[in-house]
Amino acid sequence: MAEGASKQLGRGLVQVFTGDGKGKTSAALGVVLRALGHGLRVYLVFFMKGDYPYGEGKILSQLPNIEVASFGERGSFTDPNNVKPEERKQAKQALAAARQAMLSGKYELVVLDEVNVAVFCRLVSVDEVIRLIEDKPPDVELILTGRNADSKLVKAADLVTEMVKIKHPYNEGVAARRGIDY
Amino acid sequence: MAEGASKQLGRGLVQVFTGDGKGKTSAALGVVLRALGHGLRVYLVFFMKGDYPYGEGKILSQLPNIEVASFGERGSFTDPNNVKPEERKQAKQALAAARQAMLSGKYELVVLDEVNVAVFCRLVSVDEVIRLIEDKPPDVELILTGRNADSKLVKAADLVTEMVKIKHPYNEGVAARRGIDY
Repeated sequence: MAEGASKQLGRGLVQVFTGDGKGKTSAALGVVLRALGHGLRVYLVFFMKGDYPYGEGKILSQLPNIEVASFGERGSFTDPNNVKPEERKQAKQALAAARQAMLSGKYELVVLDEVNVAVFCRLVSVDEVIRLIEDKPPDVELILTGRNADSKLVKAADLVTEMVKIKHPYNEGVAARRGIDY
Repeated sequence: MAEGASKQLGRGLVQVFTGDGKGKTSAALGVVLRALGHGLRVYLVFFMKGDYPYGEGKILSQLPNIEVASFGERGSFTDPNNVKPEERKQAKQALAAARQAMLSGKYELVVLDEVNVAVFCRLVSVDEVIRLIEDKPPDVELILTGRNADSKLVKAADLVTEMVKIKHPYNEGVAARRGIDY
């Protein structure tokens, strides 16, 4: 199945989902679901989320052909001007894990969730992520998510979508809801 | 589990994913995955897609607590100025199915995929969709996807996100890829 799946994918692209609107991680998860449905193999790494207790983590672990890894300290606010060594270490581990998965030949889709934010917060350098993109095997698809995507990443990507917030109830005092928003 | 799940959701909102960029249906699918992971019950209806053979349909059918329905003639291009009676009939059935699911008490999340396009193509009237929104039980979340969301729907929704195409390789001759794009 893996060989067939790889043939199905053909040329793998680099996709970026960015912007301040909803749906960046959700869109990546939707592509993951679609890819799994076609028998593609998926590696999904979460940056800056720590021990991932979210709803999608539970359900993804029930599906075949996917490996999920999570790094970072959940709930800790990262100040770009005052990065803790542990935050930087976790992000570097996440990037190394993504690189290893991308080069392993085991996956047709590798998702780096919130890597754009990790770059913005200087946990990893943009040039390290650019090198990842440059080293991408042709038959692997990469998806990078997170707001504030660096202009170098936008330039290096094949497909960039900005999620724009047109209207958001959290501005009107509605709190994030478990099961829908996280 | 259903009762607890319903309590988790609390106030259900009306979300719209629109715009010409990628990720509208994918984002809805990502929210579906998250909701299922938390034990919420999901009804997902596809407008204008016919017998749904896509990757996500296969994998979704393996998950618990979700019902998927699909209406419309797949691959048929709908001309807003020359709608076929069968296209209108299918879209009306899709909307009726969504309404029934929304009012049944069986689901905490109801997704109407591509309903915005069905309105744009005048397969269903915007006022029918507005009535659906007005009749929404408080503990049900509605997600409407598709480009060209009617301004009345944007006004009626709680949360609206526009997917904006910043860069797209299909403009450069790359065809849609099975397993990733559909």
